[in-house]
Amino acid sequence: MGRNVAVVGVGHSRYGVRSDVNIGELAWESIKKALEDANLEQKDIEYFIVSSVGGWSSEYLPAVVIGEYSGLTPKGTARVEAACASGSAAVKLAYEMVSSGTVDIAMAVGLEKMNESPTPVVVEFIGRAGNYFWEFHNFGLTFPGYYALYATAYMDKYGATEEDFCKVAVKNHYYGARNPKAHFQREVTIEKCMTSRYIAWPLKLYDCSPITDGSSAVILASEEVAKKLTDSPVWIEAVGEASDTANLSKRDDFTYLRAARLAAEKAYKKAGLMDGYNMYKYFDVAEVHDCFTIAEVLAYEDLRFAEPGKGIELVRNEETYIGGKIPVNLSGGLKAKGHPIGATGVGMVAELTNQLLQRVEKDRQAPIKNGRALAHNVGGTGHYAYVTILSLSKPNGGV
Amino acid sequence: MGRNVAVVGVGHSRYGVRSDVNIGELAWESIKKALEDANLEQKDIEYFIVSSVGGWSSEYLPAVVIGEYSGLTPKGTARVEAACASGSAAVKLAYEMVSSGTVDIAMAVGLEKMNESPTPVVVEFIGRAGNYFWEFHNFGLTFPGYYALYATAYMDKYGATEEDFCKVAVKNHYYGARNPKAHFQREVTIEKCMTSRYIAWPLKLYDCSPITDGSSAVILASEEVAKKLTDSPVWIEAVGEASDTANLSKRDDFTYLRAARLAAEKAYKKAGLMDGYNMYKYFDVAEVHDCFTIAEVLAYEDLRFAEPGKGIELVRNEETYIGGKIPVNLSGGLKAKGHPIGATGVGMVAELTNQLLQRVEKDRQAPIKNGRALAHNVGGTGHYAYVTILSLSKPNGGV
Repeated sequence: MGRNVAVVGVGHSRYGVRSDVNIGELAWESIKKALEDANLEQKDIEYFIVSSVGGWSSEYLPAVVIGEYSGLTPKGTARVEAACASGSAAVKLAYEMVSSGTVDIAMAVGLEKMNESPTPVVVEFIGRAGNYFWEFHNFGLTFPGYYALYATAYMDKYGATEEDFCKVAVKNHYYGARNPKAHFQREVTIEKCMTSRYIAWPLKLYDCSPITDGSSAVILASEEVAKKLTDSPVWIEAVGEASDTANLSKRDDFTYLRAARLAAEKAYKKAGLMDGYNMYKYFDVAEVHDCFTIAEVLAYEDLRFAEPGKGIELVRNEETYIGGKIPVNLSGGLKAKGHPIGATGVGMVAELTNQLLQRVEKDRQAPIKNGRALAHNVGGTGHYAYVTILSLSKPNGGV
Repeated sequence: MGRNVAVVGVGHSRYGVRSDVNIGELAWESIKKALEDANLEQKDIEYFIVSSVGGWSSEYLPAVVIGEYSGLTPKGTARVEAACASGSAAVKLAYEMVSSGTVDIAMAVGLEKMNESPTPVVVEFIGRAGNYFWEFHNFGLTFPGYYALYATAYMDKYGATEEDFCKVAVKNHYYGARNPKAHFQREVTIEKCMTSRYIAWPLKLYDCSPITDGSSAVILASEEVAKKLTDSPVWIEAVGEASDTANLSKRDDFTYLRAARLAAEKAYKKAGLMDGYNMYKYFDVAEVHDCFTIAEVLAYEDLRFAEPGKGIELVRNEETYIGGKIPVNLSGGLKAKGHPIGATGVGMVAELTNQLLQRVEKDRQAPIKNGRALAHNVGGTGHYAYVTILSLSKPNGGV
């Protein structure tokens, strides 16, 4: 199979409302850090893949625009989009280029500057990433509405409460408050979440991830090159990916995301991991796609960290805090770190690399024992899913 | 290096104004043919990459929408965009996935349904793929304007005439008239081209490629799998790619495209080909990015089929017709076959595969002697370039 591929450098901009920078400057914040982290220069990057949904402004070719600003021109490039899973798709495709032997060093850069559009326009625009012509156009379903359907189905089937979901927000804000890169660096209480206004019942303001600007970058290298660059490579052990129907009306069940389940199965199989619903045992830390609090609960179950219907107990029992079964979203997650769409998946890999290397802020650092971390990134309302497994141990002969 | 990768199936919709189909149906036209050509079913495709710029309608996730319509769900997918070179980027990334060993069979699907927007909107939208905030916004430069700058620079430096450029249109319409998949299936005369109205002096209506709907698909497979599927694999021998500044104002010279030159150099180097300005000798046929007639002339030179300033002589001496030094755009090219942006690069590979296998219409079939063909695909005004070399001979141990 292909060559082993390591993460040799990561960068992460401050997420937030970034009206202080243009897209070139925003991208450079993370690209510069990733280059410094890898001890590389722009000329060393042989190909760069840019994940960005775009459409927030009239700037239309982010790949070349940020490439030029960051001094990556004339290297080959393309933009990759898989809705909110774009970043993971970019990391995967950069991985393939190194694994195949086409290049020794590739970069994935994710970025979004969503606040260039007014909020209602952004919400409408994202709404189209559901099924446009039927569900969005005819029923006016936007993303809080879609995820409210999941939340009500889950509440009905498993007896979860609004307060349960708020506990996810409390956890993610707790860690976001400890992450200087996070959009929201403040804690929230259950009361504050419970009394926040409804966006789409049962989801309230604090159940929803914000509209965020930000960028993130990871540099991948072949085993041979990684050895020269660093004593602490973080290996990409496996990537699993899947798609699903664009029509929610065709889903058989609203209490799981089929694409996420399949993506996890594929990644676990590639990495040779199997242990029923105790998959959390293999990982020290995970970043999951908590675009809404319900989504984090579904993620626990789709990743088989818990049996169907039992994910909510991980929340109730605080098992996804540091010290619990599996710390999740110690970055603050989409909920508090923010969700600059194209940057999100790349940012997960950057965060988990830092976690595995034990170089994040002390009060949000997971204990590293297994040396393995997982990123779970969903596009649309489960249209796409990518699961990426990172490891401190070298895989055997590629994924 | 990576595994060898072969094209094992291709499909190509009729290009044109396709108000008769929606995007799912349009994509299926080429996907169905590619599957039949490869004797495969949807379940055999392990990952599919969709190249589409989109934005012509409110449908926003072409990858999952066409995947679902074509029965490719739940396979992993992402959309790739490199402006007008999107199709070549998709083929390249599908290539990487097979070459790395991650999958044995991948598909690249290109599609665009541009006529869902009114023509002025399309022209404005494409104009943003130049440098938006400076050149488009301040000077109103749209693509005919950009390429008119190249044409006038070339005329000034090398003494080319408007009539010379029209000869490119005459050739490409000549072959388009023989291609039942082409948007324009009729010949034009020099007189008709010369008397057509100016779009941006010196470029006239017949110097410009049309706004086209269409789809194309190619299926790639590893050597082992390709052997089982077909007796006539067409190998991807090399891909070269590069980017350039988004600002025309920063280009040092308007008589060549730096990204295209670099992409060609990279591809030639990988394939071990070198012969000064006689590179045409290695190829039986080429498809080049003739978005405007001047662009085809620049392509001859950037590909080193001719010295700088001598490309126009290939046109004058009809050396790019069948029987000449190197037949170019026997499909009709972007000019007559049409330019459904995301489909274009994938369609070039489909066309060249058919040419190498000698299965296109007799009166536009190139004689196959070297067993090698080249696709040249440019994005923006030279922002991106991809050069893909196909061969009937198996590469030595991957690219």
